[in-house]
Amino acid sequence: MTDPATLAERVREGDLRLHELEDHADHDTAVAARRLLVEESTDADLDTVGQYAFDAEVADSAIENMIGAAQIPMGIVGPVTVNGGAADGEYHLPLATTEGALLASVNRGLSVIESSGGADARVTKNGMTRAPVFRVSGVVEAAETVEWVREHTDRLREAAESTTSHGELLDVTPYVVGDSVYLRFRYDTKDAMGMNMATIATGEACDVVETETPASLVALSGNLCSDKKPAAVNAVEGRGRSVTADVVIPGDVVEARLHTTPGAIAEANTRKNLIGSAKAGSLGFNAHAANVVAAAFLATGQDAAQVVEGANTITTVEERDGDLYASVSLASLELGTVGGGTKLPTQSEALDVLGLRGGGDPAGSNADALAEIIATGALAGELSLLAALASRHLSSAHEELGR
Amino acid sequence: MTDPATLAERVREGDLRLHELEDHADHDTAVAARRLLVEESTDADLDTVGQYAFDAEVADSAIENMIGAAQIPMGIVGPVTVNGGAADGEYHLPLATTEGALLASVNRGLSVIESSGGADARVTKNGMTRAPVFRVSGVVEAAETVEWVREHTDRLREAAESTTSHGELLDVTPYVVGDSVYLRFRYDTKDAMGMNMATIATGEACDVVETETPASLVALSGNLCSDKKPAAVNAVEGRGRSVTADVVIPGDVVEARLHTTPGAIAEANTRKNLIGSAKAGSLGFNAHAANVVAAAFLATGQDAAQVVEGANTITTVEERDGDLYASVSLASLELGTVGGGTKLPTQSEALDVLGLRGGGDPAGSNADALAEIIATGALAGELSLLAALASRHLSSAHEELGR
Amino acid sequence: MTDPATLAERVREGDLRLHELEDHADHDTAVAARRLLVEESTDADLDTVGQYAFDAEVADSAIENMIGAAQIPMGIVGPVTVNGGAADGEYHLPLATTEGALLASVNRGLSVIESSGGADARVTKNGMTRAPVFRVSGVVEAAETVEWVREHTDRLREAAESTTSHGELLDVTPYVVGDSVYLRFRYDTKDAMGMNMATIATGEACDVVETETPASLVALSGNLCSDKKPAAVNAVEGRGRSVTADVVIPGDVVEARLHTTPGAIAEANTRKNLIGSAKAGSLGFNAHAANVVAAAFLATGQDAAQVVEGANTITTVEERDGDLYASVSLASLELGTVGGGTKLPTQSEALDVLGLRGGGDPAGSNADALAEIIATGALAGELSLLAALASRHLSSAHEELGR
Amino acid sequence: MTDPATLAERVREGDLRLHELEDHADHDTAVAARRLLVEESTDADLDTVGQYAFDAEVADSAIENMIGAAQIPMGIVGPVTVNGGAADGEYHLPLATTEGALLASVNRGLSVIESSGGADARVTKNGMTRAPVFRVSGVVEAAETVEWVREHTDRLREAAESTTSHGELLDVTPYVVGDSVYLRFRYDTKDAMGMNMATIATGEACDVVETETPASLVALSGNLCSDKKPAAVNAVEGRGRSVTADVVIPGDVVEARLHTTPGAIAEANTRKNLIGSAKAGSLGFNAHAANVVAAAFLATGQDAAQVVEGANTITTVEERDGDLYASVSLASLELGTVGGGTKLPTQSEALDVLGLRGGGDPAGSNADALAEIIATGALAGELSLLAALASRHLSSAHEELGR
Repeated sequence: MTDPATLAERVREGDLRLHELEDHADHDTAVAARRLLVEESTDADLDTVGQYAFDAEVADSAIENMIGAAQIPMGIVGPVTVNGGAADGEYHLPLATTEGALLASVNRGLSVIESSGGADARVTKNGMTRAPVFRVSGVVEAAETVEWVREHTDRLREAAESTTSHGELLDVTPYVVGDSVYLRFRYDTKDAMGMNMATIATGEACDVVETETPASLVALSGNLCSDKKPAAVNAVEGRGRSVTADVVIPGDVVEARLHTTPGAIAEANTRKNLIGSAKAGSLGFNAHAANVVAAAFLATGQDAAQVVEGANTITTVEERDGDLYASVSLASLELGTVGGGTKLPTQSEALDVLGLRGGGDPAGSNADALAEIIATGALAGELSLLAALASRHLSSAHEELGR
Repeated sequence: MTDPATLAERVREGDLRLHELEDHADHDTAVAARRLLVEESTDADLDTVGQYAFDAEVADSAIENMIGAAQIPMGIVGPVTVNGGAADGEYHLPLATTEGALLASVNRGLSVIESSGGADARVTKNGMTRAPVFRVSGVVEAAETVEWVREHTDRLREAAESTTSHGELLDVTPYVVGDSVYLRFRYDTKDAMGMNMATIATGEACDVVETETPASLVALSGNLCSDKKPAAVNAVEGRGRSVTADVVIPGDVVEARLHTTPGAIAEANTRKNLIGSAKAGSLGFNAHAANVVAAAFLATGQDAAQVVEGANTITTVEERDGDLYASVSLASLELGTVGGGTKLPTQSEALDVLGLRGGGDPAGSNADALAEIIATGALAGELSLLAALASRHLSSAHEELGR
Repeated sequence: MTDPATLAERVREGDLRLHELEDHADHDTAVAARRLLVEESTDADLDTVGQYAFDAEVADSAIENMIGAAQIPMGIVGPVTVNGGAADGEYHLPLATTEGALLASVNRGLSVIESSGGADARVTKNGMTRAPVFRVSGVVEAAETVEWVREHTDRLREAAESTTSHGELLDVTPYVVGDSVYLRFRYDTKDAMGMNMATIATGEACDVVETETPASLVALSGNLCSDKKPAAVNAVEGRGRSVTADVVIPGDVVEARLHTTPGAIAEANTRKNLIGSAKAGSLGFNAHAANVVAAAFLATGQDAAQVVEGANTITTVEERDGDLYASVSLASLELGTVGGGTKLPTQSEALDVLGLRGGGDPAGSNADALAEIIATGALAGELSLLAALASRHLSSAHEELGR
Repeated sequence: MTDPATLAERVREGDLRLHELEDHADHDTAVAARRLLVEESTDADLDTVGQYAFDAEVADSAIENMIGAAQIPMGIVGPVTVNGGAADGEYHLPLATTEGALLASVNRGLSVIESSGGADARVTKNGMTRAPVFRVSGVVEAAETVEWVREHTDRLREAAESTTSHGELLDVTPYVVGDSVYLRFRYDTKDAMGMNMATIATGEACDVVETETPASLVALSGNLCSDKKPAAVNAVEGRGRSVTADVVIPGDVVEARLHTTPGAIAEANTRKNLIGSAKAGSLGFNAHAANVVAAAFLATGQDAAQVVEGANTITTVEERDGDLYASVSLASLELGTVGGGTKLPTQSEALDVLGLRGGGDPAGSNADALAEIIATGALAGELSLLAALASRHLSSAHEELGR
C-alpha cells in the first residue's frame, strides 16, 4: 500500500505526473498526495479542503486532479405546497449558497405562498438541444442541405435514437448563415439533464448528414444550442425545461406579511424588472431568479455553469381586485435527477429531501417536478425582494408624510 | 447544554420554529437538530450533508436555516505563468465542479499556454455598479433630475463615500424612460466584489437625490446595474472587472500538442463562437467560458449566481504567420478576495493556493490578479475545446480520405 | 365643381374638417385645398410637395390627409447576374435614397460580383408571422391552452385559411409567460408581404382559441411577431424571407478592382462586423445592409418601417485559397410584389425594371426573386464598403512604410 | 446641347458608360438618357419616375446613376401642442408613407393628446458617435492604448475639432476585445445629423492615436458606433437624440375618445409592449414607433436606414387615479435639419411646415425640436394603436357578456 507521502515523493522525483496519481494508488491516497504537493508549492494549508465526506473514487467521473472538495453551506426552505404538473404536495427545498439573507428571503416568500394555498406550476415546454455547425461551399449547397434535412427527419431520428435507450429526438431546426449550416436538434431526455445524451445522439445523426448532403461537420456544437451562454435562442425557444410558477396572494396577506400593497409590488416589478431590464438590453426580466437557481443547482448536483440560462426569467406582477398575482417563467432551466453531479452524496441526499432522487415514473416526471419546485422557489425570492423594495419605499414615504 | 434531539423535540412541540434554533443552542447543535427534523419529515438521510468541515457559526453570515454543506469536488490545474497587470508569475488554479473532463481540458490548454511562455492578461476596466430607479411625474421632472445629477456628482460622491472606508464613486450615468429615472452608480470597490458596499453607498446618495430633486426612490436596484441577469449593459460597459487574456501559440506547438492547425481552430472559432453566437442572438461569443468561471467561483468563494455575467465573454482566434493568436475578453467578471464566501474555510484555502487571500497591496490588486488568472483559465478552456472540435473534424476528414 | 380655394374656405369657416375634404371634392382638389390650408397656417410653400405624378385617388389606400408627395431621388445599379432559386438572369436594381455615394458604392460591388460570374442566392425560409397575446388566469390555464393549440393546429388552419384565397398557415408556436399566452402564427403569403393577410387570418383563428380554451384575446399582436421592432425572434427564426446571397471573387479581381486583398477584407469583416457587433450587443452583424434594404424598399414600394428587421443581417467573409468568399444572410426581409405601396406608379415602374411587378408564377416566386436580388445588392454594398475600409487602411499602411 | 436620345446612343455605342452621363450633359438630360436606356433594356416604362419636381443637379450629392424619383404620398397630422425643451407651440407634422390608416391613427392620438393640453417632451441626451476599430498585438498593447486615450482626451478633442466649425467632441469611450481596440467618439453635431462630421473628425483623431500608441487603424467604423444596426449599445447609451414625450390623459377623455379605459390600455401595453417584447428578445418595447419615425424621416429628408435605431423605443403606460399616463422614450433618434436629404425640395418644404428648416438658434435647437415633435407623433401612434387593440377586446368582451 502506497501512502500519500511516498506517492508525492515520486512526483517530486519526476517519476509520476500530477494527474497520474490515481493510476498508482487508491483515489483517496492520490488525492491526499496531490494536496501535499500543492501545499508545498503554494504555502497553502488545505486541511478543510481535504475533509470531504465521500469516497474520492465516486467523484472520478466529476473531476480530475482532485485535491478535495469545496464546501458550500446548505440550508433548507419551505415547506411549500406545489400544485404542479409533476410536483404535487408539500416540499422542502435545499439550497446551497454563500449569499447571506438569501434563504431567509426565499423562506419569507414561500411562507406567504403557502398562506395563499401554495403555488401552481407547469413545465410548458421541454427539450435539450445540440446544434452542430457544418461547412458548405455556399448558399446553393446550404439550401440543398436544409431541404434534405427537412425531408429526412426520420432518418436523423433513427440515427440519433440508436445511441440512447431513453432519449427521443423531437425535432431538427435548420439555420443558414452564408456557408455555414446549423442544425438545432432537440431531444426529450427524460430525467437526465441530457447534454451528453444529446451530444452523442447528434454526433450519430451528423454522420448521416455528412453522408447524404454536401455538408461537412466543423463542430458538434455551433452555439445555436446554446449551452452556457446568455443567448436569445434559449430565452425565446427554451432549452431544458420552460417552466412557470404563479400564485394569487390575498391583499390582506400582502399587507400583513409583506408590509406593503399589491400595487406597490406591481409598480416595483414594472419599473425594475420590466422597464429597467428593457433599458438594460437584458434577457432577464426579474429581480434575482439566478440566486435561487444557483443555490438549488449547487444543492442538488446540477451544472453550475447552466445558471447562465437559468437566469432567462421573466417575472410578472399584477394587482387583481385588490389581490396580487405574481409569476415567474424560466425559459431554459436545464436540470436532471439522474447522472452528473446528482450522484454525489451530499447532492443525492438533497434530492432525497425533495423525494426526487433518480428516474421518475413516468420517465421525466422527477426532473419536471424539480423544475416546478425550483420555479416556486424563484417565485418566492422575487416576491420577497420586490416586497422589501416596495415596503422600504413605502416606509420612507410614510416618514416624509410624517414630517 | 442542549442536544440536537432535545432541540428538535421543542420544534415538534411547537415551542420553537425551524429558523430560531440558533437562538437556543450553539450553531452546530442547531444545525444537527434541523437536520433531524428534515430527515424525519422527508425520509432523507442527511449523513454526508452533516459532515461539513467548518464551524457552523462561521457560516452564519452566509446562510440561514443551515443543515450542513454541499460538497463539490475540487481539483487543481496549472501551473501556468500569467503576465498580468496584477498577477505575475506561476499559478495553480483550484476549480470545483461536477463536470467530468473539465479540469483535464483546461489543464491541456494551460499546458499549451505554458509552452508558449504563459498568457498575457490585463484588467482594462473596473467598477461595481448599482442603479436605483426613481419615479418622477414625467419627462419634465426627469430632465430636471438628470440635469441636477450631472451637475452635482460631487454631492453624490460625498454622500456615497461617507458610508465606506474603501470604496470610491467613479461616475453616475443617468437614463430616462418615461417617468422612471435610473442612475447607474459605478464604484471602485478594491478587493471586495463590492455589491454590498455599492448598495449601501448608493442608498445614501439616493437620499440626496430625493432631497434635491423631484425624484422618489422606487427601488434601490432598477436592473440597469445589472446584477445576475444576462444584460447587454454589462456586456457592453462592463461590471466588476473587464479582463482580457491572450497568448500566441507557435504553429508547431498547435500541431504537436493540440493535433490540429491554427487555421482549423480559427475556423471553428469563427463558425461557432462568432457566427453561431451571432445567429443565436447571444451576448456570449465563446465555447464554454462559463464552465471555468463557475468552477473558479465555487472554489474561491465567489457568488455562483454571478456566473450569469461571467458568461459575457468574447473569444477571438486568428492565424498569424502560421502561429495561433487566441484571446478571451470577459466583460463583467464580478469577484473579490475579501468578504462574502471567501471567508469560508475551503474557499480561503483555495485563495491561499493562489496566494490571493484577503486584501491586496495596493488595494484591489488581489482581485485584479484573480480576474487575470481566471481569464487565463478560461482561455485555456477555449483553446482546448476548440482544438478538440477541430481535431475531431480533421481526424474524421482523414478517415474519409482513407476510405 | 369645387375648387381648392372654396373647399379650403369651408374648413376655415368650420363647415368641414381637414380630413373630410375627400368626401366633398375629387381627391386632387381635396389635396390642393389641404395644402392651401397648411401653407396658410405654417408659412410653408408646398409647391414641390404638390407636384406629385399620380392620381391622388390611387393613393387613397396608402395615406390619409394627403398634401402631396415626398420625392426621393431614384437611381439604378447593375446589371448583375443573380443565380437564385427564383431570380435567374441579369437584373438592374432601382434604389431610392438621399445618401450620397451609396449607389456608386453598391455599383462598384455589383460590378465586381458580375466579373466573378454573378451571385448565388436562395430563400432558405419563408413565413409572415402574427402573434396575438391572450390572457389566462394563470399557468394552469396557460398549459391547458398550449396543449389544446398543439393538438388542434388543423382547426386553427381551417379557420385562418377561410379568410384568404392565397395564404397558407404553416405552423403555430405557443409561448407562455405567467398569465399571458402568445401564439406565433406563421403563413406562406406568396407574393404579398402579407401582414394584413396574416392579421385577418389570425383574427379568425383567435375566435376559435377563445371558444375552445380559457384564453381571452388581449391584443391581436403581442410583439412576438415581431413587426418593426429589432427583436431576436426575427433574427433567429426569420420573418418574411430568410435569404442568403454569396459570391467567390478571384483574388486578382479583388486586387485589381477593390485595391486590397482578400485577407484585408476578411480582417475588416471580422473585427468590425463580427467582433465589433458582438461587443455592441447587436442583432446586425454587417456594415450597412440597411442602406441597400432601405433604398430598395423605397424604390419598390415596400414598408419603410420594416427596414428595422431587414437590418438583421450577418455578413461573412473568408479567404479561400487566395480568393474571397463573401456572403450576406438577411434573416427577416419582409417584402412583396403585390399590394401595399407596390401599386403606386413610381414603385410599380421600379418593379417593372426588375420584371417583378405583380404575382409570380408559381405564386411567391416574384417576391422570392426580389428578396434574392436585394440580398445581392446588400452583398455588393458590404463588399464595397469593406474594401474601401481595407484599402484605406492598406494605403495608409503603405504611406507609413514609405516614410 | 445634347438631347437624351443622342446621349443614350453614345452609351449604346460603347462611347460612354452609364454613370458618366452627367459629365457630358446637364443633369436632367443625363437622367432622361439613363431612363431611356433602362427602359430599353428592361421593358419598363419609367414615365412617372421621370416626373420629379426638382432640378436633378440638386440631387447630385444625394444619388448617383439617377433615373428620377420615387414618390411617396405625404400627408399631414396635427396640430398638436408640444411643450418641449426646444419645441414650443402648436405643430403640424408631415408624414410620408404607403401604410394606409397610419395617419388616421396618429391623428386620432394627437387629437386626444391635444385635448389633454398637448405633450411634454425633452431631449435627455444627445451625441452622434463613430467608433473606429484598431489592431494591436494583444492585450498588453490594448491596455497601453486605452490608458493613453483616457489620459489624452484633450489631444483627441483638439484633432477632431480641427476638422469642424460646429461639432464638439463630448467624450471617447474605449472598449477592448482581445487584440482589437474600439474607441467610441461622441459628438455634439448641433442641427446636423452629423455622421459625416463625426466620421471626418474621428479620422483626424485616429491619426493621433496611431502616432502616439501602438494601435493601427483597421476600419473607421468598428460597429460600436453603431450605425444602422439594431445594437444594444444605442438602446442603452443612445445615439443622436435620446428623447421622451409623455402625456396625462383624463380618464373621461380616454373613454369618450378612445372607447376604452386607462386600465385596458395599460394592460395591453404591459402584455404586448413590455412582456411580449421581453419574450421576443427585443430592443424595441413599443407597438409601432418605427412607423411614425419612418414616415417623418421620409417627409423631412432624414436617412431612411436609420429607422433601424429609431425603433429602439420603450412605451410605458400606467393608470394614475383614473387617468392615463403614457410615454415613449426613443433612445437613438438620429436626425438633422441641415445637410443630407433635408436640402431636397419636398423635404425642405416639409421642414418649413414645422418651422424647422435649417440651423436653429441656439445651434441644435431645431434638431432637438424635430426630435421632440417626432416623439410626440410616436406617442400618438402608440396611444391610438393600443386603444384600438384594447377597445376591440373590450367590445368583444361586451359581446360575450351580452350572449
